[in-house]
Amino acid sequence: MSPGEIFVWEVLGTAVLILLGTGVVANHLLRNTNGHGGGPLFINVGWGFAVFTGASLAAPTGAHLNPAVTLGLAVAGKVSWGLVPVYVVAQLIGAIIGAMLCWATYKLQFDRHDAPQNTLGVFSTAPQIRGYAWNLVSEIIGTFVLLAFILFSPGYKAGTDGIPQFGNGALGYAAVAFVVLVIGTSLGGPTGYAINPARDLGPRIAYAFLMPIRGKGDADWAYSWVPVVGPLIGGTLAGLLYLALPAQ
Amino acid sequence: MSPGEIFVWEVLGTAVLILLGTGVVANHLLRNTNGHGGGPLFINVGWGFAVFTGASLAAPTGAHLNPAVTLGLAVAGKVSWGLVPVYVVAQLIGAIIGAMLCWATYKLQFDRHDAPQNTLGVFSTAPQIRGYAWNLVSEIIGTFVLLAFILFSPGYKAGTDGIPQFGNGALGYAAVAFVVLVIGTSLGGPTGYAINPARDLGPRIAYAFLMPIRGKGDADWAYSWVPVVGPLIGGTLAGLLYLALPAQ
Amino acid sequence: MSPGEIFVWEVLGTAVLILLGTGVVANHLLRNTNGHGGGPLFINVGWGFAVFTGASLAAPTGAHLNPAVTLGLAVAGKVSWGLVPVYVVAQLIGAIIGAMLCWATYKLQFDRHDAPQNTLGVFSTAPQIRGYAWNLVSEIIGTFVLLAFILFSPGYKAGTDGIPQFGNGALGYAAVAFVVLVIGTSLGGPTGYAINPARDLGPRIAYAFLMPIRGKGDADWAYSWVPVVGPLIGGTLAGLLYLALPAQ
Amino acid sequence: MSPGEIFVWEVLGTAVLILLGTGVVANHLLRNTNGHGGGPLFINVGWGFAVFTGASLAAPTGAHLNPAVTLGLAVAGKVSWGLVPVYVVAQLIGAIIGAMLCWATYKLQFDRHDAPQNTLGVFSTAPQIRGYAWNLVSEIIGTFVLLAFILFSPGYKAGTDGIPQFGNGALGYAAVAFVVLVIGTSLGGPTGYAINPARDLGPRIAYAFLMPIRGKGDADWAYSWVPVVGPLIGGTLAGLLYLALPAQ
Repeated sequence: MSPGEIFVWEVLGTAVLILLGTGVVANHLLRNTNGHGGGPLFINVGWGFAVFTGASLAAPTGAHLNPAVTLGLAVAGKVSWGLVPVYVVAQLIGAIIGAMLCWATYKLQFDRHDAPQNTLGVFSTAPQIRGYAWNLVSEIIGTFVLLAFILFSPGYKAGTDGIPQFGNGALGYAAVAFVVLVIGTSLGGPTGYAINPARDLGPRIAYAFLMPIRGKGDADWAYSWVPVVGPLIGGTLAGLLYLALPAQ
Repeated sequence: MSPGEIFVWEVLGTAVLILLGTGVVANHLLRNTNGHGGGPLFINVGWGFAVFTGASLAAPTGAHLNPAVTLGLAVAGKVSWGLVPVYVVAQLIGAIIGAMLCWATYKLQFDRHDAPQNTLGVFSTAPQIRGYAWNLVSEIIGTFVLLAFILFSPGYKAGTDGIPQFGNGALGYAAVAFVVLVIGTSLGGPTGYAINPARDLGPRIAYAFLMPIRGKGDADWAYSWVPVVGPLIGGTLAGLLYLALPAQ
Repeated sequence: MSPGEIFVWEVLGTAVLILLGTGVVANHLLRNTNGHGGGPLFINVGWGFAVFTGASLAAPTGAHLNPAVTLGLAVAGKVSWGLVPVYVVAQLIGAIIGAMLCWATYKLQFDRHDAPQNTLGVFSTAPQIRGYAWNLVSEIIGTFVLLAFILFSPGYKAGTDGIPQFGNGALGYAAVAFVVLVIGTSLGGPTGYAINPARDLGPRIAYAFLMPIRGKGDADWAYSWVPVVGPLIGGTLAGLLYLALPAQ
Repeated sequence: MSPGEIFVWEVLGTAVLILLGTGVVANHLLRNTNGHGGGPLFINVGWGFAVFTGASLAAPTGAHLNPAVTLGLAVAGKVSWGLVPVYVVAQLIGAIIGAMLCWATYKLQFDRHDAPQNTLGVFSTAPQIRGYAWNLVSEIIGTFVLLAFILFSPGYKAGTDGIPQFGNGALGYAAVAFVVLVIGTSLGGPTGYAINPARDLGPRIAYAFLMPIRGKGDADWAYSWVPVVGPLIGGTLAGLLYLALPAQ
């Protein structure tokens, strides 16, 4: 598969992932929606199957959709380092597109929101209790679980062009959706489980610079490095574990 | 497969889809039910597995159950244009039958409902904030995601008689259920995710002309074009993307 | 497979189904439980995966666990009429065992319950609004959907000894679980979706004659025929549809 | 597979299982989390897919992650008695590691918790109504269902090195997740469904001796034998049933 094809599929898959993921938070948080106050399980289910949908679309590329996944797979020797920038740039662009589509879907709700300064939470994560070191720990642990699952799961095998994919036809990526769902229910409490630098940074950029939301708040750049650095560390640690302990 | 067979399976599958889909809304909205106040996730899960059930029943025809699916597949070259009217008429008839069966299931609840003028919401969608242009955008985006998934999913392959189906035996259509579930949680906030002209128009016709609900309200025909036109545009856009970017 | 083997597996599968199904209602309804007030989706998920668990255990027999399933399959020509009594007696015995195990699991909760006269609802169904004709319609429609799915699903194929089973190894019966889940969310509102004469009658017998619950209420025998007759009619109708319209 | 390899995979799988399982309880119980008050289904879904994730990671060893599973399989003749101590020690160590990682993830929340003496419930189970004999019955029945499913499921077959595994590639262990989910919704009401001695004892040890939670309560050692002995009895009973009634 050519770098151009990887780029296209990763943009498409990440855009759909972020559209659906930020969408469930918008549905829960904003007023005048059918999902207002849907609650934690509602949000975690939404993000889980957002991954299923986006990842299934990007199956030809191995459906990374996440720089921490790409990095962890590169460390583990599953993807060549030369392709890493292609994946990461596509993921960031896709995430920005997805966030903008979420804004368009909920345009009327954003226009009428009575606390527009609090709408960053639709798009990017924030810690419930601020403390960068321990926030980082939460993100490292969450991302480590995701990458450990991907690397060691019996469902992850070399596919088209030698690019590893989750098998089982229509349902292969449901496995990853289940894991993202449980990372949300179980490890998402403190920081909102970014576990994906593109998932957090792309929508933050879109929110800060692109979205015409009247009265919107600031983009909390002070925190923005945590959901980038934490996932990259977690992914790297899982990749190193894979080198130490190859899957059977 | 003959047009007559396509007709029969699409009627059956769409009737079951709409029976179960409108049923979960009835269970949530009406009083004196076991599901009263079940909430957003309850409704989204109901619609998701309504699609699983109806689509599995209609597997021989490729389980469109939705004119926007038929149109998107026709644009993408996956179904011949000559069969489109057969699919669409069957879907509309099935949707009307399904809505009537939902009414029969909840007959005693409708008879006792204290606000019968507000029962259209069991059967057809309405925007949370009215604004036809942006309501249309919500429906276009939701349907685009559905069709993009169907067209690009690794699970969708040529089956019986060359008609593409979701594979994996008993569970193939769970993939579509998961996607409809997440479209509900994530994109259903503003307009209730019709994403299917038959799903909205068939029950609306049944409500307006067939159901003997005392004191029922009007059928909101002013809005009724949005959940027809929006999905058809969204399906067409996904079909065009497929032509530009064939699945690997 | 011998009638004796069918008997054993159907007893085991139905006992586990009813233990888990009545268990989720006990968990929701009784005080001093971890699931108190779990809500409609909690209950529907519990019953859905109760079916998954019980049916997987009884896979060798085709996992009927339900006289309406056995009858519908017999009408459709999928099981010989001579075996019908073996299945049905086993199902009823299994259901009684399962209800007693549920009582044992929640023994301390039953002992302390402040309204022991209202505990029948843990074990058997009751209509939200009493009206036997329309209650029957609800049960007929719900069971028809279940049997139509079983008979027409692409996942239901001849297995061991020619006995049809749901394929896909570990996960085949998840398909039936998803359908029972959605019947619950969507059609269970008026009557609590017995859709299975053994599921309702067995626990009712156990409640009336076997359980030592101090202050327990009566077994509502006046209603007890509805969740027996309704499912048998619904199953028969689906079997007749199958004869008219064989699966492709 | 060597005992050393079994040890490593069981430690890894059990650590992830307990991290995610205790994590969902932390998210629900502690303040200042995104999942606070998530409710019973939220917790049951979390534990269910915690099993999916941990078991998928430990697939090479058959993914016991639970001394009651190891014992039940040994009784049934599916694992040699000589390997039982390897499995059990690894499970206990993994459970301790998982509990410590949960503490690290929620460190800031534990530090600020206004009732630190009540935090044992994040890590270990306790009965809603204390009565050791009937608490034991609840744990025996719950574990019996789990082991009966594992032993009799059509999805459990001899895999690598003759070690039985759940098949179906990426999704095989979703079957076990569904069963643990429904054991939670249906049988978890009275005692919190330990159904796994390591799941309960490991985190209890970690809580009592390792976690630096200021003001933490005692470890309720008086109850601690119930969630050890109950599951071991339940697993043994299922193993004996398997010997009496071999799977088809």
